Amino acid sequence: MEVSVLRIGHRVVRDDRVTTHVVLVSRAFGSRRIYMTEVDNSIKETLAKVVKRWGGSDFNVEIVRDWKKVITTWKKNSGIVVHLTMYGINVDEAIIDIVGKGRVLVVVGAQKVPNELFHLADHNVAVGNQPHSEIAALSIFLDRIFQGTQLKRDFRGAKIKIIPNVRGKHVKMLDK
Amino acid sequence: MEVSVLRIGHRVVRDDRVTTHVVLVSRAFGSRRIYMTEVDNSIKETLAKVVKRWGGSDFNVEIVRDWKKVITTWKKNSGIVVHLTMYGINVDEAIIDIVGKGRVLVVVGAQKVPNELFHLADHNVAVGNQPHSEIAALSIFLDRIFQGTQLKRDFRGAKIKIIPNVRGKHVKMLDK
Repeated sequence: MEVSVLRIGHRVVRDDRVTTHVVLVSRAFGSRRIYMTEVDNSIKETLAKVVKRWGGSDFNVEIVRDWKKVITTWKKNSGIVVHLTMYGINVDEAIIDIVGKGRVLVVVGAQKVPNELFHLADHNVAVGNQPHSEIAALSIFLDRIFQGTQLKRDFRGAKIKIIPNVRGKHVKMLDK
Repeated sequence: MEVSVLRIGHRVVRDDRVTTHVVLVSRAFGSRRIYMTEVDNSIKETLAKVVKRWGGSDFNVEIVRDWKKVITTWKKNSGIVVHLTMYGINVDEAIIDIVGKGRVLVVVGAQKVPNELFHLADHNVAVGNQPHSEIAALSIFLDRIFQGTQLKRDFRGAKIKIIPNVRGKHVKMLDK
């Protein structure tokens, strides 16, 4: 499956660290790209540092002017749009209709999102019906899509790799 | 199972929003309390607002002076200590030795943690070996512990409850 993320409603500075987490989770949990309406340089720099060291230069941040256009274009190209919201259907029920259906765009909001998003999305999916975190929602959703395999991915072009260890840090330098 | 969270290395202001997410995920994903070394008032206020509306007043934030003492006391009382770290053993292997073992303390760091934590912990567990987010790591770990049941919990004393909906917001006011 090919998964992309669309982040809307990011408020520069206030949300920068949370948005950095959203970007890093998108990369680490197997999505191909994240679309954002604006982005602070500190976020780009953090991602660039991570990619240089840990690989995965095929993961992209794409800045877009109009988030609605991203959704309508995605749907025109036969992609499925999933909006993560606490008001939606439980992820473990909804996922059955999503897994294996090709290209998925996952939409996460920084806070309250425009009501029309509920109608633009093909699926409104809840990772629990309690207020918590779009980072948690995104990570659980991607985990359901990739069923834990995302935690064992290798990233192309990585300079280092962690060898899982019971106690302490074991880092392997990789040859180019 | 009874799960508590210990958050260390929080830097006031810089990490406040990320820490708020850690606190809200701890509550929403079924842990009983979160221990923190310091906390900004804005975090307490956000949690208080959430609890007033969404219930779960049995979830507590406990401010502690000495995080090491929390761990040693926990172990003395026959609890298991799990440190979430990208250097550890894959969660899907490690979880077999943790589920059903009684009381678990999950330790998450804001950034780099003291090396001794690797030795104090009973289990060093990785939610992937890539840099991403302690919020994502915590949510996946709690999800593995509670196997998705945490997403359907009812919270005592809630004033409102979301009725999962395909499109739009359906909120039910609860009688007292």
